[in-house]
Amino acid sequence: MTDAGQSTLDDLPTPCLILDRARLDRNAAFMSKRMADMGIRLRPHLKTAKSADVARIATADHFGGITVSTLAEARYFAANGITDMVYAVALVPQKLDEIDALQTEFGVRITVLTDNVGVARTIAERAATLKTELAVLMEIDCGGGRAGVTLDDPDMLEIAKILEAADNVSFEGVLTHAGQSYHCHSVDEIIAVADIERDTVVAAAAKLKAIGIDCRTISGGSTPTAIQARHFDGMTEMRPGVYVFSDLMQAALGWGDHSNIAVSVLATVIGHRRDLGQILIDAGGLALSKDRGMDHIDPTVGMGLICDKLGQQKVDGLCVDDTHQEHGILRMNNGQPPPWDDLPVGSRVRVLPVHACMTAAAFDRYRVVADGDDVVIDEWHRAVGW
Amino acid sequence: MTDAGQSTLDDLPTPCLILDRARLDRNAAFMSKRMADMGIRLRPHLKTAKSADVARIATADHFGGITVSTLAEARYFAANGITDMVYAVALVPQKLDEIDALQTEFGVRITVLTDNVGVARTIAERAATLKTELAVLMEIDCGGGRAGVTLDDPDMLEIAKILEAADNVSFEGVLTHAGQSYHCHSVDEIIAVADIERDTVVAAAAKLKAIGIDCRTISGGSTPTAIQARHFDGMTEMRPGVYVFSDLMQAALGWGDHSNIAVSVLATVIGHRRDLGQILIDAGGLALSKDRGMDHIDPTVGMGLICDKLGQQKVDGLCVDDTHQEHGILRMNNGQPPPWDDLPVGSRVRVLPVHACMTAAAFDRYRVVADGDDVVIDEWHRAVGW
Repeated sequence: MTDAGQSTLDDLPTPCLILDRARLDRNAAFMSKRMADMGIRLRPHLKTAKSADVARIATADHFGGITVSTLAEARYFAANGITDMVYAVALVPQKLDEIDALQTEFGVRITVLTDNVGVARTIAERAATLKTELAVLMEIDCGGGRAGVTLDDPDMLEIAKILEAADNVSFEGVLTHAGQSYHCHSVDEIIAVADIERDTVVAAAAKLKAIGIDCRTISGGSTPTAIQARHFDGMTEMRPGVYVFSDLMQAALGWGDHSNIAVSVLATVIGHRRDLGQILIDAGGLALSKDRGMDHIDPTVGMGLICDKLGQQKVDGLCVDDTHQEHGILRMNNGQPPPWDDLPVGSRVRVLPVHACMTAAAFDRYRVVADGDDVVIDEWHRAVGW
Repeated sequence: MTDAGQSTLDDLPTPCLILDRARLDRNAAFMSKRMADMGIRLRPHLKTAKSADVARIATADHFGGITVSTLAEARYFAANGITDMVYAVALVPQKLDEIDALQTEFGVRITVLTDNVGVARTIAERAATLKTELAVLMEIDCGGGRAGVTLDDPDMLEIAKILEAADNVSFEGVLTHAGQSYHCHSVDEIIAVADIERDTVVAAAAKLKAIGIDCRTISGGSTPTAIQARHFDGMTEMRPGVYVFSDLMQAALGWGDHSNIAVSVLATVIGHRRDLGQILIDAGGLALSKDRGMDHIDPTVGMGLICDKLGQQKVDGLCVDDTHQEHGILRMNNGQPPPWDDLPVGSRVRVLPVHACMTAAAFDRYRVVADGDDVVIDEWHRAVGW
């Protein structure tokens, strides 16, 4: 505790999730300005942050809409004053009643998503029985190969016609997500993916226009394409999410130099195995996630890089090489011996995450600090679960 | 809802965690009887289940002690009537005050672990200032290569001497964990690892005996070695954990045939991509974990196998091939087309987990069902977080 009675990093139980307020503010301001400069609305995806405090910062100077990935997030953000959400995972009809109840209780609008003719028909049948109007977007696959209809699929026109004709349904337009941007190896590749993302979703809207259906919303997403796209002409909004925090993956994809990574896990050194060249910490697979999403880009990163307690200086070469449930195993990736004396048992480190969405998911709150400071200035809730 | 007003699987929001009570009971009874037959005490590791309800079942007919992996678990189990716990992650001195507070408040005994001379010295210095006696075990590495002192490390005798001489410290003995059992490829290999686990920890106790230090506790662990070991002569207790649930990994290691896997994730089919041969479900990387721990044993399992809604019949060849945060991507591993008509959008499936500890960790509760039944008979809490 400080003289003023505030908690410091040493007072926190480990592992815990640290959020650097200044870095968050800078990342949010960067994207907000970029989207404004490019003339496109920002609808940040809050699946990463799951926090109303972060939502307020991320939506500042924009129209206030956000994106969510679960109905638990929708409920939480509705209760915290967010009124315009896109629930960006394909709707199944079983979830209609809860969406109707949330819209009724909180006076919010939760736009849903479909890529399926059968679901569109069920929506059309059931919407008239709902208390609130249902706003629906159609999901388009621009090459990510996850969900969505492709541009040449006849279902695309069929879904739009069904929804456009339905009572108590507002067909809003088209939405895509360039998930393939995460597999790029250069900024030029990301720019090319951003071109495809934009061209695909704009072409989808044009196809619908040609049969007399207007798209009020033409929405794209992904942090890499939001940062690197040459322009967003013809689109109405972008839905990046992880940019508020960044992570090692975003840095590897060409954004930032690790000094803008706003979330990290505070952990305590719990062991030295000099015979094996490994340092153990009390942040394992549960606290860091088992995401090895960077193995194909930079396997030397492992499951996280190690910084000093204040998150300012990286411990050169030291990474999370393996995890067990509550053990993180740190090893050197440069052939040097670990800095035993700098990191005695009981000392504290920060782990920069490979994938901030997955790492943050283990925690129910953020401990908020100022950049490089030791004092915990705030504690912010996270909407975990489903 | 049933006529009697009970919830059924169709009433549950997805994704959610289902616990099959009959399978849990059978698994717990199997291990309880095996340990009793082998004449060794069972101290189940509750890091897997994190549930007082499961703890009561798993400790039945044994002495009532359990193992935990976090102080959050220790607090939860203390508040739920468990009085004897081993906190089986190496202690750092910062955690002493909380352990002392828990022992004082709840009248419980939380035995801690060290493998470090410096920590042993700090324990010896600080124990006299605690309100409660501190029980300490020394961690031995039997070849898992994670934490622990090795048998030939002079620190082993030094740590024991420091703790044995300390005021208000009860040196309890030695503990090991044969983590390498998870890398075995046959039951014979597991039996060999179990021999090493036992021989190592028994030899450690003998070395201490030779300098006049008795070990009341000689503790081993890991579900594979608990199930396969030829005998436990010289040991006093075993600490398996995941056996209460089992998972695809345990089955691959030679135990059971998937019909004893007691936890699974209930998910809803949210999309069909006939052009790509993939079915999408609403259980992704957060609900299933990103654990790919079976890639080296059986990559066809992916991140989970798919069963019908009641968890009775596997959908042959269908596995979770990839995950995004809230999307699970199912593909066939046998070259056949996916069973589109059997799994329409909106239908429900169960995902058998690769690694039950990691999958369960995403959820704050179990929905408990009887084997193969549709009715939710109970809801049990999980002690998540730290």
